[in-house]
Amino acid sequence: MPAKIEIERQSDVIIVTNDFPETRNALNADFYTGFADTLAKANVDPTIGAIVLTGGGNFFCAGGDLNRLKKFATTPEPERRDSITRLHAMIKAIADCRKPIIAAVEGGAAGAGVSLAAACDLIVMADDAYFSVAYVKIGLSPDGGATALLAQSLPRQLMTEMCLTGDKFGAARLLDAGVVNRVVSAGSALQEATAWAADLAKGPARSMARIKSLCRAARENSLIEQLEMEEELMISAQTDPESIEGISAFLEKRPADYTKLRRDK
Amino acid sequence: MPAKIEIERQSDVIIVTNDFPETRNALNADFYTGFADTLAKANVDPTIGAIVLTGGGNFFCAGGDLNRLKKFATTPEPERRDSITRLHAMIKAIADCRKPIIAAVEGGAAGAGVSLAAACDLIVMADDAYFSVAYVKIGLSPDGGATALLAQSLPRQLMTEMCLTGDKFGAARLLDAGVVNRVVSAGSALQEATAWAADLAKGPARSMARIKSLCRAARENSLIEQLEMEEELMISAQTDPESIEGISAFLEKRPADYTKLRRDK
Amino acid sequence: MPAKIEIERQSDVIIVTNDFPETRNALNADFYTGFADTLAKANVDPTIGAIVLTGGGNFFCAGGDLNRLKKFATTPEPERRDSITRLHAMIKAIADCRKPIIAAVEGGAAGAGVSLAAACDLIVMADDAYFSVAYVKIGLSPDGGATALLAQSLPRQLMTEMCLTGDKFGAARLLDAGVVNRVVSAGSALQEATAWAADLAKGPARSMARIKSLCRAARENSLIEQLEMEEELMISAQTDPESIEGISAFLEKRPADYTKLRRDK
Repeated sequence: MPAKIEIERQSDVIIVTNDFPETRNALNADFYTGFADTLAKANVDPTIGAIVLTGGGNFFCAGGDLNRLKKFATTPEPERRDSITRLHAMIKAIADCRKPIIAAVEGGAAGAGVSLAAACDLIVMADDAYFSVAYVKIGLSPDGGATALLAQSLPRQLMTEMCLTGDKFGAARLLDAGVVNRVVSAGSALQEATAWAADLAKGPARSMARIKSLCRAARENSLIEQLEMEEELMISAQTDPESIEGISAFLEKRPADYTKLRRDK
Repeated sequence: MPAKIEIERQSDVIIVTNDFPETRNALNADFYTGFADTLAKANVDPTIGAIVLTGGGNFFCAGGDLNRLKKFATTPEPERRDSITRLHAMIKAIADCRKPIIAAVEGGAAGAGVSLAAACDLIVMADDAYFSVAYVKIGLSPDGGATALLAQSLPRQLMTEMCLTGDKFGAARLLDAGVVNRVVSAGSALQEATAWAADLAKGPARSMARIKSLCRAARENSLIEQLEMEEELMISAQTDPESIEGISAFLEKRPADYTKLRRDK
Repeated sequence: MPAKIEIERQSDVIIVTNDFPETRNALNADFYTGFADTLAKANVDPTIGAIVLTGGGNFFCAGGDLNRLKKFATTPEPERRDSITRLHAMIKAIADCRKPIIAAVEGGAAGAGVSLAAACDLIVMADDAYFSVAYVKIGLSPDGGATALLAQSLPRQLMTEMCLTGDKFGAARLLDAGVVNRVVSAGSALQEATAWAADLAKGPARSMARIKSLCRAARENSLIEQLEMEEELMISAQTDPESIEGISAFLEKRPADYTKLRRDK
């Protein structure tokens, strides 16, 4: 079963839609590879400033396809391992991508769908949408980095409850917990995420790439290590045309124009 | 002074009561060893699906016994160290136990009582109960993993406030902070925790053991390390009879029956 | 441009004011060294029990001085690196100082001003004050440990939003998130922080130094490592005159007097 990945361009933003509504956008190995490829291309395309990830049919992603998972009981291990390896390569690609990635979540995210949303840098969620770390309901355990990624944002007891029960956790609670950035009325998550992405896309691209890498590394580095990383990136930033433009614009009380600089390099 | 550990069985759940109300269930070395032993037995007993930990006399646990602590000033170091070693072995046993452990907190938890509650996987708390990391009030510093465990759930400034002041933090605030899962009316924490444990006990035991270990490891692993751990556990889960039953039940739109599988192995 | 660091003593507390209101207390290398020196002296002065850090002119700290930053584009790397090294030495000095440090935040904190506030043990904030991790607005990336320190308290998505947008996050939201301890009416942050510091200064100094070090280390240690650290510090605390006084006072139902003990050693 191939993936259907739709890519729409709006100015400096690309909107990537996992568009398989008849399966609630269930994930498969083609999607893993396809989305990772999309990110690899976006990473080196200076005309792309930010990325929105969403799902077709007013649902973010149901996670694994049950009929596919059912076959795994009798699938040789190398083939099963290959699928997880691709999933995990995609999650690493999201984390390592130099551009901000915003998840626009309508309906809900379940299983690896939660991993996919939680791997993004920012999350916009419809007010009736939910996360369900549903693996336990079918006797599995999380993959796609669900436990790694939720641990970056949630208290252990709350995350344990999500993972041990598979219960649905609604947008309001996830916003309170700080794992979701914005909650909007049902049906408008994509619009909100796209507007936010367009706004970010006007920002300094290399500066934002440095910031993203710091936000990711901060969870794994000691204070000393993170200070060293901040130092190295600041030294680079100080002579980058972006900061020269940013500081000049500020002192001259005019808006900075980073767009031209983004296209230089 | 011996510990009084009461163990009550309700179907697939055991309720462990630290039952020394005249000392507000103060901890001692016998309790440390006794509870660790209880967990070791529960760990290999396939008929036990979940564990509830509570305290007698409508109070969770006052921490160390002051009269016992007073003697420590003149106790030889090896003996003092032995007591801490046992306490810490119990905390590790809670973290490593394959079964979910729910703390049912009435009244309050102070000092190592907070460590004991925070070490559990899930916490149900009476609405008038509190945590007090009281060590500072008697010139000591936390043990029992209080600082390790609270750091898994709380912002550093909030945790620092709890530890530097020893103030009581009530159930509502702890629920908001996400370190407590459910707050119920005073007197009903044990009932709520037991019902929840009975519910969890119907779940897939090996799947839940994998999930618990992932939730614990996630705080210490890098993203890459946690992805590798998720991969290994998923590979095992995919051929486990639990997932075969879980996926089949889901596709057949019937409730899964994991209980029989739990008893197999 | 020299720093203006005012130090006022109130009983056992020192109030350190970064007093350069015409620059909104912008930071420079002299401040970094000056404040680190102040902490080094306070660290070994047994008459100082706690430290308050604030800014002059009803503003905490605007971060780097834009005119100074502008020159960095053409400043030789060793000189730029020296400034960051001093900033980071100051941040480490705050983390390593044995005394509790409370930030009293009026107005706002921006850029490295956020790093400075977030490096403190406790934060008291005026209700109209804000944090703005403003680096992105001028094409830079955070320094001063902003990303390390915010990661100790905030969910990754929320922290990413703060760092990628540079938006102002107000006191109420920061209190909810747990990175700020107390929010008070505008104009009274310093008074509240000073009263709190005076209260802490009555506590057991060596006990609090142990607690502070545990709260800092907990973010970097594994459970096992943190249990070992807690054990070593508890063994020391058990024979410290502070715990002898604390336990005796508690059993005798009288207030403990740690002040005399603090001055002994």
